[in-house]
Parts: sequence; structure tokens; C-alpha cells
Amino acid sequence: MYMAKVIGSVVSTQKDPSLVGKKLMIVRPIDSDKQPIRFEQVAADTVNAGIGDNVLVVRGAGARRADGNAAQNAADVNDCTIVGIIDRFDK
Amino acid sequence: MYMAKVIGSVVSTQKDPSLVGKKLMIVRPIDSDKQPIRFEQVAADTVNAGIGDNVLVVRGAGARRADGNAAQNAADVNDCTIVGIIDRFDK
Amino acid sequence: MYMAKVIGSVVSTQKDPSLVGKKLMIVRPIDSDKQPIRFEQVAADTVNAGIGDNVLVVRGAGARRADGNAAQNAADVNDCTIVGIIDRFDK
Amino acid sequence: MYMAKVIGSVVSTQKDPSLVGKKLMIVRPIDSDKQPIRFEQVAADTVNAGIGDNVLVVRGAGARRADGNAAQNAADVNDCTIVGIIDRFDK
Amino acid sequence: MYMAKVIGSVVSTQKDPSLVGKKLMIVRPIDSDKQPIRFEQVAADTVNAGIGDNVLVVRGAGARRADGNAAQNAADVNDCTIVGIIDRFDK
Repeated sequence: MYMAKVIGSVVSTQKDPSLVGKKLMIVRPIDSDKQPIRFEQVAADTVNAGIGDNVLVVRGAGARRADGNAAQNAADVNDCTIVGIIDRFDK
Repeated sequence: MYMAKVIGSVVSTQKDPSLVGKKLMIVRPIDSDKQPIRFEQVAADTVNAGIGDNVLVVRGAGARRADGNAAQNAADVNDCTIVGIIDRFDK
Repeated sequence: MYMAKVIGSVVSTQKDPSLVGKKLMIVRPIDSDKQPIRFEQVAADTVNAGIGDNVLVVRGAGARRADGNAAQNAADVNDCTIVGIIDRFDK
Repeated sequence: MYMAKVIGSVVSTQKDPSLVGKKLMIVRPIDSDKQPIRFEQVAADTVNAGIGDNVLVVRGAGARRADGNAAQNAADVNDCTIVGIIDRFDK
Repeated sequence: MYMAKVIGSVVSTQKDPSLVGKKLMIVRPIDSDKQPIRFEQVAADTVNAGIGDNVLVVRGAGARRADGNAAQNAADVNDCTIVGIIDRFDK
């Protein structure tokens, strides 16, 4: 999992059927000092995150299990999902 | 998922059977300001993207589910697929 | 697997059900001279690691097998887990 | 998939049984201007690529499906395979 | 697969049960000129590699198939394995 900040969203009408209905958020990875690291990605939101929220993001097969759909959806193309909103960084 | 711009395509006649018939596009990852990031890759197109389009790209197992073929194709080698055309970046 | 130092933890109440009950630790990858490399991530702890410990971290499907749950948990979103505490680096 | 140039091969006699008989080529990733990017890897060849060829390389599970063996080989350790020879870059 | 040099090992007593009995080696990725690239990782050895050997390393699911255990071990957390000792780089 990595930490990221939600900085926007993308609109895409011509897309894979499995992405229909998903909120596609632009996330910028951050470190625990909230400094930007690595590079932006697009993640499907499943915890009602909003712009400005610091979040937890998973990638790969784990990302396809987070959409409130315990069974692994054979047709889901998504590989990046927001799975938590960070309340606090304890260091 | 990452954002990318379609900048070309590759022609390959001597290739794995599972790649036959796929449009192999050269994609350059971008951030939400449309600036290039990371490095170019080749992605199979499944949403009729053209050169100059900004697109959504998935990698790994998700890439093998996007070819309009819900069942996971046991012989498909593809690991990178264009799954959406970006209409708008909202920030 | 990579080597990392545990530098803190994150608190997240609004998260995927499969993350409930997991200790979410902030880990900073290190090399064998204990120098920081790459970028911070969040890993679920399964070996009782504490802040300051040097640890072994796995990612991807392997991360979902470490939570003392041999059967692959179909709904587990986690993709990063602490699987060992490093006692010594022998070089 | 990424683009790469074949620059050599490695010889390894003490190796995993599933690698026996595979041509292990050294590949250097390139961009569509044929400039080197990222870092060298070793890929199993399945399309008769030779030194100097520009090729398409896949990684992860897709790499294990390219060895002319449609069924996913449960014991195959390979995670990187040459799946096409690039004839032309169209930009 | 990537090329790497074995530069040491780690000792870990408090670890996931599936790592017990595995030789955990510190590997530093190299290119075909034996120059260090990327960053150190820890890999389970399955071919009797020793410190100073140049080796082939796989990651992800492939790494869990190399431990002489053709059936995919459902509880194995390892995601990085040494699968060959390099005798020669031919360029």
C-alpha cells in the first residue's frame, strides 16, 4: 500500500465496461511528511474519498477485491484502488 | 491505472499468437498537467484510441481482462492495455 | 522481498473491511547499510514489529498470504506486508 | 509491454529446472526513438529474436504463457519473456 | 528476471512460517557489465548461490514456484527468489 493525496478526478466516457460507475480519482503518492513522491496515478475510489483527502492505495489483484465485491470479478480491469482514508500519521 | 498519451504504434509480424489482431500502441505516461512522466510502454488498445488521445492504461492481470473477453484468456501474454479515453481532467 | 525500517503507523477508520484489525505501519525501504532507498510505503504487520525495527517486506499476492491465513483470502485488498524482523545483516 | 533491444545472452548451468532449454537473452529497454531507458533485464526468448533485434517484452504471469504452452505451467519460474520482434515504430 | 550479485544474507528469527528454512540472501541488481543498478533486495536462494556469485532473480508469483515445489504453495509469502547462477555474460 502507498500513501497518496487525492488531487482530482478524470472523466472518461469511452472505457472498458468494468470501469463504468467507478469514481476515477487522480492520486499523487506522498510520504509520511505529506511530501509528493513518485508519480500520479488514477485510482478507483471505494471509501468515498474526496479531493484533498490523504488516502491508502493498493495496486494489482488486491485492487480488484476492494469494490465491495468479495468474489474476484473475472472481467474487472482495474489495477489501482483507494482502500482507506488516512486520519493520522503517527511517527 | 496511469494516464498516458498515445504517440504511435509498433508493427510486429513475428510475435506470440495471442498478440495477433491487437493494435499495439506506443503510450507515454503523463501527469494530470499532461506532462510526460516515467517511460514509454506498448499497450494493446481496446477502446479505439488514436494517436494524440489521452488514455487510461492498466498493467498485469487486469490488462488481460480488457480485450472484450471476460473469461481470463489462459494463453494471453499481454500485460498492458488501454482501457479508457480521458475526456477531461478535473482538478 | 525488500529490507525496510518501521518509522511509524497510520490510523484509518474509513477503510476497506479487509483492513480492519490490521496494524498499518509506515515502512521506509533501506539497503544493507541501513541507508534509506526508494520511497515509503504502508505495510500490514504480522510479526509484531515495532517502530525502529528493521524488517522484511513482501508485496503483491504474497502479502495476502502472510496474515496467518494460509488460504488465499478472496476479499483481502492488502498488497504489502511485514513478514520478518531482521536480527542481523551478514556481509 | 515494453520495447527493448537484445544486446546479449547469459549462460547458466546451475538453475531452476523450468529454465532448462530456454534462451535467456539480455534486453535493454528502449523508447520509440530507440534510446535506452530504465535498466537491463534477462528475458526468455520465444520468437527467435537475435542480438540487435528490437523486441516486445512482457513481465509477470503473462511471461509464463508465452512459451508455446497455453496452459499456465504451475512450476515455471520465468517472469520476463520476449513476445515479439518489432518491425517498425510508427509515430 | 534480473541479474544481481549476492553480497550477503540476513538473519531473521521472528518471521512468517513459510520463510523458515529458506536462505535469505541480500542481492544487488547489476547490468551485464556487472555495474550496480536499481536497489538491493532480499531473495530466497534455491540454487546454492554463495556470496560473490552473479545470479538470476525472479519476483512475484514465479518466485513461489522455484522452491522445488511445483505445486503453487498457498501459504508461501516469498516474492523474490534466486533461480540461477550466471556462468557467463555473452555480448
